[in-house]
Amino acid sequence: MQGRHFLHIPGPSPIPDRILRAIAMPIIDHRSAEFAALGKEVLDGSKAVFKTKQPVVIYPSSGTGAWEAAIVNTLSPGDTVLMAETGHFATLWKTIATRFGVEVELIPGDWRRGADPAAIEARLSEDKSRQIKAVMVVHNETSTGATSRVAEIRKAIDAAGHPALFMVDTISSLASVDYRHDEWQVDVTVSGSQKGLMLPPGLSFNAVSEKALAASKSNTLPRSFWDWQEMIKINAGGFFPYTPATNLLYGLKEALAMLREEGLDNVFSRHQRLASACRAAVKAWGLEVLCQNPAEHSPVLTAVLMPPSHDADRFRKIALEKYNISLGSGLGKVAGKVFRIGHLGECNELALLGALSGVEMGLAAAGVPHRSGGVAAAMAEFEGSESGNQAKAVA
Amino acid sequence: MQGRHFLHIPGPSPIPDRILRAIAMPIIDHRSAEFAALGKEVLDGSKAVFKTKQPVVIYPSSGTGAWEAAIVNTLSPGDTVLMAETGHFATLWKTIATRFGVEVELIPGDWRRGADPAAIEARLSEDKSRQIKAVMVVHNETSTGATSRVAEIRKAIDAAGHPALFMVDTISSLASVDYRHDEWQVDVTVSGSQKGLMLPPGLSFNAVSEKALAASKSNTLPRSFWDWQEMIKINAGGFFPYTPATNLLYGLKEALAMLREEGLDNVFSRHQRLASACRAAVKAWGLEVLCQNPAEHSPVLTAVLMPPSHDADRFRKIALEKYNISLGSGLGKVAGKVFRIGHLGECNELALLGALSGVEMGLAAAGVPHRSGGVAAAMAEFEGSESGNQAKAVA
Amino acid sequence: MQGRHFLHIPGPSPIPDRILRAIAMPIIDHRSAEFAALGKEVLDGSKAVFKTKQPVVIYPSSGTGAWEAAIVNTLSPGDTVLMAETGHFATLWKTIATRFGVEVELIPGDWRRGADPAAIEARLSEDKSRQIKAVMVVHNETSTGATSRVAEIRKAIDAAGHPALFMVDTISSLASVDYRHDEWQVDVTVSGSQKGLMLPPGLSFNAVSEKALAASKSNTLPRSFWDWQEMIKINAGGFFPYTPATNLLYGLKEALAMLREEGLDNVFSRHQRLASACRAAVKAWGLEVLCQNPAEHSPVLTAVLMPPSHDADRFRKIALEKYNISLGSGLGKVAGKVFRIGHLGECNELALLGALSGVEMGLAAAGVPHRSGGVAAAMAEFEGSESGNQAKAVA
Amino acid sequence: MQGRHFLHIPGPSPIPDRILRAIAMPIIDHRSAEFAALGKEVLDGSKAVFKTKQPVVIYPSSGTGAWEAAIVNTLSPGDTVLMAETGHFATLWKTIATRFGVEVELIPGDWRRGADPAAIEARLSEDKSRQIKAVMVVHNETSTGATSRVAEIRKAIDAAGHPALFMVDTISSLASVDYRHDEWQVDVTVSGSQKGLMLPPGLSFNAVSEKALAASKSNTLPRSFWDWQEMIKINAGGFFPYTPATNLLYGLKEALAMLREEGLDNVFSRHQRLASACRAAVKAWGLEVLCQNPAEHSPVLTAVLMPPSHDADRFRKIALEKYNISLGSGLGKVAGKVFRIGHLGECNELALLGALSGVEMGLAAAGVPHRSGGVAAAMAEFEGSESGNQAKAVA
Repeated sequence: MQGRHFLHIPGPSPIPDRILRAIAMPIIDHRSAEFAALGKEVLDGSKAVFKTKQPVVIYPSSGTGAWEAAIVNTLSPGDTVLMAETGHFATLWKTIATRFGVEVELIPGDWRRGADPAAIEARLSEDKSRQIKAVMVVHNETSTGATSRVAEIRKAIDAAGHPALFMVDTISSLASVDYRHDEWQVDVTVSGSQKGLMLPPGLSFNAVSEKALAASKSNTLPRSFWDWQEMIKINAGGFFPYTPATNLLYGLKEALAMLREEGLDNVFSRHQRLASACRAAVKAWGLEVLCQNPAEHSPVLTAVLMPPSHDADRFRKIALEKYNISLGSGLGKVAGKVFRIGHLGECNELALLGALSGVEMGLAAAGVPHRSGGVAAAMAEFEGSESGNQAKAVA
Repeated sequence: MQGRHFLHIPGPSPIPDRILRAIAMPIIDHRSAEFAALGKEVLDGSKAVFKTKQPVVIYPSSGTGAWEAAIVNTLSPGDTVLMAETGHFATLWKTIATRFGVEVELIPGDWRRGADPAAIEARLSEDKSRQIKAVMVVHNETSTGATSRVAEIRKAIDAAGHPALFMVDTISSLASVDYRHDEWQVDVTVSGSQKGLMLPPGLSFNAVSEKALAASKSNTLPRSFWDWQEMIKINAGGFFPYTPATNLLYGLKEALAMLREEGLDNVFSRHQRLASACRAAVKAWGLEVLCQNPAEHSPVLTAVLMPPSHDADRFRKIALEKYNISLGSGLGKVAGKVFRIGHLGECNELALLGALSGVEMGLAAAGVPHRSGGVAAAMAEFEGSESGNQAKAVA
Repeated sequence: MQGRHFLHIPGPSPIPDRILRAIAMPIIDHRSAEFAALGKEVLDGSKAVFKTKQPVVIYPSSGTGAWEAAIVNTLSPGDTVLMAETGHFATLWKTIATRFGVEVELIPGDWRRGADPAAIEARLSEDKSRQIKAVMVVHNETSTGATSRVAEIRKAIDAAGHPALFMVDTISSLASVDYRHDEWQVDVTVSGSQKGLMLPPGLSFNAVSEKALAASKSNTLPRSFWDWQEMIKINAGGFFPYTPATNLLYGLKEALAMLREEGLDNVFSRHQRLASACRAAVKAWGLEVLCQNPAEHSPVLTAVLMPPSHDADRFRKIALEKYNISLGSGLGKVAGKVFRIGHLGECNELALLGALSGVEMGLAAAGVPHRSGGVAAAMAEFEGSESGNQAKAVA
Repeated sequence: MQGRHFLHIPGPSPIPDRILRAIAMPIIDHRSAEFAALGKEVLDGSKAVFKTKQPVVIYPSSGTGAWEAAIVNTLSPGDTVLMAETGHFATLWKTIATRFGVEVELIPGDWRRGADPAAIEARLSEDKSRQIKAVMVVHNETSTGATSRVAEIRKAIDAAGHPALFMVDTISSLASVDYRHDEWQVDVTVSGSQKGLMLPPGLSFNAVSEKALAASKSNTLPRSFWDWQEMIKINAGGFFPYTPATNLLYGLKEALAMLREEGLDNVFSRHQRLASACRAAVKAWGLEVLCQNPAEHSPVLTAVLMPPSHDADRFRKIALEKYNISLGSGLGKVAGKVFRIGHLGECNELALLGALSGVEMGLAAAGVPHRSGGVAAAMAEFEGSESGNQAKAVA
């Protein structure tokens, strides 16, 4: 496998050179004034990405830890929470909650759409005794490429007049898809470093509302590493209660700078453009996008259904060996049945088109029935979206 | 502050260039065959450093997480454990255990020596009803520079015929000080990446005995992120149950290679040599080393007592501003009263002598009463130890 | 301009991550044993790339310097040499020779093919008095994308029985296109670091035959920096007569390792495959490849003629601004009339297809008349060439 | 050899991490607008370091090339120039001039002092027929550690009323020692990247006066690569006439930023402080500094005479093997008799003291007669110079 590898899994996303150089800086004393300046900068800067003025907690751990942190800081054994079965990652989060003695009511799903606001409203409305302590939703379900409508779910909760905490996993959406922690009154937003933030895995996040902080004072799950209270207190000075992952924080500082330079709105529209072109390619190949709700197509990845009796992993292996491209595998109950094309982080038009070329040639090499013309359709989509933009700009 | 910074805190230790370049490699698919080869290499290679044939669990978290992992995998609320008050970090570990409902019996200490094997034996012998579930000791107490005699504590436990688990924190000793997980029958060895392994913070370790694994099947503390069972099962294939900190694993691979190249025994004797020279300097300055037991002087750091009424942090600040050197602060109850000189990781003779020059000139600049000649004494110690070595080699 | 830049000029070629990390290693004493080992390794390793057992001289300069070195080491003012007008770079080399008082006879050319062996043979055969001291040819003319047939030119010289030195510029062909310094009895092969060797600019090369070395003892052009004799003498120990570009030599060591790992023959066939796919795209667009001789199409770049009255540089600017791709400009007398697509160095299938997508969309954006389908044609060419290979492998 | 290497040769100087990261940035199109901005920035920024408003030419070559450039751009075969035998590098520059047919009159020297302004004035005054076309002086003679008084030599030339060009080699002094191209009316200042500029070798410089430019229009030495006229013309747009060493220019941009941040005057006084402390150490050891004129002690290196019958290279080898320090060898007629301690570039107090510790212990290990106390004397010198500064500040 020669030359540049095309890493098009839905995360970790390729790490930009700028960030790789940033994490390779010599380490400094994590109790120094120099560190405090760094700490303040990344803690403050992260708030802009979550669109919040409330505390953002940064853990030296991968995203799974931040899932756990949301649970152990707010819930107690025996509590009931409401989740939506959007796919593999929603299922994993459910498992974690269960391990901590939390009862999870799961609104069933077919892994082909986001969480259903109406179903959530209905269930909450029924819950007259307010047994449900939290609604927990995965914003962008990385296993299926469906992005739940968080703003609408917020409205659903409000419509039901229910006091449940609202906890949202944005591990694969943050900094790629529009997200508004404060405006949507999310209580805990969970995230990670290795997707839209373009960093290596190893940092994770909880953005925390006052309501969540209040809950953390009375819940009974034991915790230490994940505890918000001490973290937030010590963060005030730019420091951390235990040794932080300094080199990844260097990377975070650089990532925040890159996002500011491009502008978050431009980042979001770029991801929409990439996703739209990717779906055009899938359609041209005569294949099916896993997500069936056009309002919920993910801007960060596209999961593609294989034709019956064709193994997605065999295809992925052939594409990797012949064309040096990594695609995402199907996970959980769609294992072997779908492959996933990541188009997040620093991805741009030509990187995606290179990747789609690899998919198209890989399908051929693997003998998977398909029509050619996917790359051409993606190019046409890019050109059309620009014409559209220009037309709008003129109007 | 111009030129190379002399980072002589007792961790994070300076990261060698080789490792900085390694962590700056592009990220790969953590579900690929290429990753599995990396995973197996670092999981196996880590065993050699712990001197164990049993599983070593690698967490994408800082060392504090590995402390918590040892507790939540083996203990239950209400369990009693025996700890020794060797200093600040032993106290922190105790606090974590307490947060999880564990009762901690603390053998009091004056922060000037390691854990006392005789006291541990005495207490265990008294414990006829075997209430004590674990003995938990910090190998190298980073706050005081005292290194507990783990092999002797093992003997003390055996002498008492007590079945308690033996859990040892080697966060600041692993790969710098001789340590033998299997030979000393330690049940859980806790460690971290940013000291003797010369990596950035962000990886932590549990080496786990069969007895500890058995305990993890019956204890009742809830856990998910820290759970050994799933981790060890999935590690068998070179993979991890959730996204690993790939770039730090690149660094770990390089660190393991560096340790192999130098030879662990050479690494250990180098640290002894550096520590010995550092103490010679302290003695020449007419200052006092905090650790009072010569058998327990730390090879990785030297904590130095300030003369009465002189503030250690003021001195550290002046040394930093004038000479671009970072020294460790006093922590906990010795805050302001001691400063700590780190000499671990890639430290060598000339790096230490440069640092000691900075301390000696810093003491003068801060008006701290002392005799000059510390650097000269350290040089003499280096030269003497070599003569000694040569004499031995000849004999 | 966001995300990964597609650098598809015909050199400098994109520098692989491995090489960027290699050149970022700390510098060492250029008079040390450690350096001598590096020096010997790269001096020896370079010979394999030139396919020679004779000395290869490495200058700390860009390629233009190696052009000058070939001249000042072998020729004298008033000497006559024979060159072929293959394009802009042949013209530049001629200019340099002229500046040193050398008379250049230029076989005229139309910039659409390589040097004509027959014309060279004819001219040499006429030269009964052996006035012509050297035949100087550019192997791969980077301005036009035509690769001269060096083996056939060698035969032409031999057929004429002429004793002229044979000097070949391989700046943009070495390590991308088959080349054999010894077998083809080339006397001076000139090269540079920033093309097939995938390094930054800053190293240049002269591979030198015994005949050339003999000429360098009697020619009269003054020289010092470029002088072979002292260089070769001191190179024997792995050292250089003046401070070498150590960090670039680190990169050269890594580049040589990469070439060995892939295998030179595989490198050559990969470049052929890329070039063939690129020409298929150009043909599908209805545009014309500048080079008209199929036997001389360059494996490292493809120069494309713009339709009349369309400015190549305007197109290149639009492609850069909209799609973050750099294409090569037309140089000299084809300025504005051609653009050049580089596909050399670490380039692979998907990188080229991404680039071709950028060209195709850029042509549309710039309003340049063309048919779509170039990328599709390139994909078909890749797939066909593989079928072809497989067919051959079977047969 | 373990841990950080102490590179204390008088160049290449250790490359700061910032610069290593800068040179590892991906390469860009050297004909792009992005490059032009870089080109202008470094061309302009370099002027500030030379203290000139006149053109500074940057070659993609090591410093030896810039020596040659000064000669071939201004002189003609048969011209006579006046040089001073300050040491090995002056002798090398003389050799180069001779190779180009220039007659060199060498004012003899004992390699223990700088060029003598009085001798230069005397010789120029004698030269009634103005045969001498140039006075060529090495500012900081890297082989001896003597820094010639360029301002006084300028006065000497003026006192003689002689029209000779004034050419000065600042390869090892630029950006470390006060230097003023315009104020001192130097016509050609030669320099290199790997000393005070803290870069890898591979860039060299000519700062050029109008008088020198005028000379370059009428002299007769042939040239192309080194030609100023074309270079300066094309530099106006931020470009170069041939492929520049882009990655080293990235480093130059960073180096210029570092020098601006520290302030050139602070850089100069830091080097004075380091040199003064180094000489104090040598004196305390009872050894002799090679340079005998206190007004000419080099701020960038200190050459130390070995006691009779002790081989400097044997000592250097032992110091390297035991203490991982590289010291400079004696060159030319002082080979084996002196070793050289480099204290230039990013060197600071503690780095130098670490190095001096290595020298002191190395002398002992090699059995070289000396007194101990050198490091202590250097510390005292640092402390004294600060007291002195404070006293001055108070006064």
